Amino acid sequence: MSIIKVALLGFGTVGEGVYRTIQSHQEELRAAIGKNVEVVAILIKNKEKKRAIDSEVLITTDFEDIIGLPDLDVVFEAIVEKEPSFTYLKRALLKGCHIITANKEMFSHHGKELIELAAEQQVSVGFEATVAGGVPIIQTLQQLLKINNVSAIQGILNGTSNFILTEMREKKQTFIEALKLAQQNGYAEADPGNDINGCDAYFKLMVLSGIAFGEQPELSCVKINGITDITIEQIELADKLGLRFKHIASIDRKEDRLHATVIPTLVSKAHPFYHVEGVENAVNVRTDLIGSITLQGPGAGMFPTASAMVEDLVQVLQSPATEVKSRKQKTVVKKDEQTHATSYWLVCKLKKRLSLNSISYSDQLSEEVYAIKASKDQLVKLYEQNADLITYPILGTFELESERKEATLLLTR
Amino acid sequence: MSIIKVALLGFGTVGEGVYRTIQSHQEELRAAIGKNVEVVAILIKNKEKKRAIDSEVLITTDFEDIIGLPDLDVVFEAIVEKEPSFTYLKRALLKGCHIITANKEMFSHHGKELIELAAEQQVSVGFEATVAGGVPIIQTLQQLLKINNVSAIQGILNGTSNFILTEMREKKQTFIEALKLAQQNGYAEADPGNDINGCDAYFKLMVLSGIAFGEQPELSCVKINGITDITIEQIELADKLGLRFKHIASIDRKEDRLHATVIPTLVSKAHPFYHVEGVENAVNVRTDLIGSITLQGPGAGMFPTASAMVEDLVQVLQSPATEVKSRKQKTVVKKDEQTHATSYWLVCKLKKRLSLNSISYSDQLSEEVYAIKASKDQLVKLYEQNADLITYPILGTFELESERKEATLLLTR
Repeated sequence: MSIIKVALLGFGTVGEGVYRTIQSHQEELRAAIGKNVEVVAILIKNKEKKRAIDSEVLITTDFEDIIGLPDLDVVFEAIVEKEPSFTYLKRALLKGCHIITANKEMFSHHGKELIELAAEQQVSVGFEATVAGGVPIIQTLQQLLKINNVSAIQGILNGTSNFILTEMREKKQTFIEALKLAQQNGYAEADPGNDINGCDAYFKLMVLSGIAFGEQPELSCVKINGITDITIEQIELADKLGLRFKHIASIDRKEDRLHATVIPTLVSKAHPFYHVEGVENAVNVRTDLIGSITLQGPGAGMFPTASAMVEDLVQVLQSPATEVKSRKQKTVVKKDEQTHATSYWLVCKLKKRLSLNSISYSDQLSEEVYAIKASKDQLVKLYEQNADLITYPILGTFELESERKEATLLLTR
Repeated sequence: MSIIKVALLGFGTVGEGVYRTIQSHQEELRAAIGKNVEVVAILIKNKEKKRAIDSEVLITTDFEDIIGLPDLDVVFEAIVEKEPSFTYLKRALLKGCHIITANKEMFSHHGKELIELAAEQQVSVGFEATVAGGVPIIQTLQQLLKINNVSAIQGILNGTSNFILTEMREKKQTFIEALKLAQQNGYAEADPGNDINGCDAYFKLMVLSGIAFGEQPELSCVKINGITDITIEQIELADKLGLRFKHIASIDRKEDRLHATVIPTLVSKAHPFYHVEGVENAVNVRTDLIGSITLQGPGAGMFPTASAMVEDLVQVLQSPATEVKSRKQKTVVKKDEQTHATSYWLVCKLKKRLSLNSISYSDQLSEEVYAIKASKDQLVKLYEQNADLITYPILGTFELESERKEATLLLTR
């Protein structure tokens, strides 16, 4: 039986998970690909650190030692930041190796280039681990929804920010306290900036956009707001309204343009994200045939992420070379998606109402805080009148007290 | 460009959905498989009925007309009952056609035989549509979780019974009223027996068992209870305890034996099924690497089910012949899964408590109704003492009032 020789770049949580999974799941790998898989080399940063690695494995701090190995089949990359990862993976492709990466920042920027280069080299790229850890959303979009046209994707794609929002609500903690706990539990990075400011979720959204729509929107057109401004008071107020804050990354195509946001959003009980708590991730995909499906599971962690990479190993070895997707999705314009369609928002720091009578306001919920029903056009005007306005969209079923009263009145008539 | 010629057996909701989807998604099919797809023949029951079918398509009530066609590539089957579907599909395989079926009853019985025959004939079998409509659970298990060992699967697999339970709770309707509404909305069959007695969910569970564990448990070992005995009073009582009734099909492997049930179950707010309402389906899969993932979406309907079958078309044309899975899963025995481990139950018609002091009881919640904490062994003894006992397992986080008080006491000490 022949052997698949693989190298790992990085031996942090994810790299170690991949190593241990390949060791523990030899039998399953043989059953799936008909070959033994052997980790022949690992690129590390610090030679002094003790690690539980077989003595036969080449452990090196020099990428040249790895790229120079004869008969290397696959390179797994689990480092962070764009460089030197991108350069390493390009060289691996040029050498004729399949590559499998967990690096969302790098891949959201250079994914297209890597996939094109892989196609030239007749090898494949696995990147399931770049989005939502153990949740197989990438392969679901790539392999299982080839006939469906995707119209929109929404996701809770960052476990750390979701954990913080859950802790704040459940345990009445401040943002800082919840962040500390996330760090103590090993969820947040030492520098949690990208988790809480939305950049991490943005990188993942861009990877999803590339697969689902064949392109990415310009960064300048994507509204990205972090969760740092959300207060316990706002969370408690939302709770009273039956709503929860979730940090939602969202993309859809309307009239041939991609619209993407990564913003704190309020969801009602009927929304599939309402009960996605703690470090869980969830992705909702809307398509023309299925309607709406949601995948939920662990967004991070040693073995969920390693699972994504090792399942990718089966895919890259079995599939023909990764195709360059030029999936030009059909535009599905729904009536309720037009800009004059109204939806609900929680607005804070609203000092001045519009003189028009067209926006419906709730009673004042707290100082300068209201729930409103308005169109996007009207909202823009409201921003013009209120320099410091903060708005959170409300997803799922929701209605204002005044509408409820009116409905009751109609029923009792 | 060459043409894939397909025949449809059955032109009910699903058959018509497949026909219309193939018509409307020619471009997507060409992009995915590089060929045009043409429906050349349709098997119907009643020749008199008007249907919107192209005049070039052969419409016949005689299967011989279809099986006699030259150059047929794929046969889609969307009929009900085991026969004559099984015979038709065997003959299609023997002719060298790929087959794609939505028939869970037939496939749960004869799936293995069809897959083996297909392997001999070097063709493939698609059966995504047999379970959970538009939710791609079959392909996820088959294609995306090849290295993960599945330890358990739980599902809300019947939209009709879930719709009835939702209606009863939300609108305080009786079982009969809710069933009527399900029939009016076209969710339930004219004969809804298999929906509400659990057989439909059982068939689907057996299909999942075949893929995940490579075998099915004996029918005699599977506990199947329908939802017909659930009363509004029980639903309201559960609601007060923060619980909801769901009709859950469940299978796991412990100590190399499969354990399967299809029973009304109470789930708490933290469980991913708590908010799966109406005709939605959901499947939760536990594996050794990922942990737990949940897929949720429309379990029925013309286009979701057609989507499953047309996506299968891409799979059967692209993949090598369906392998006969002899996936012998590793046994993962968890400590909390032993029979002496305690869990929570709602018990009705409890006339006689056990003399042992080992079961914890709540205060009486209603006449002869209690929440209890007990092991399976203890529960068996409780059944011995109470001939009419009805028990519902409680999933998710739950505790008895007495335990809550004790915890509070400990905290305040």
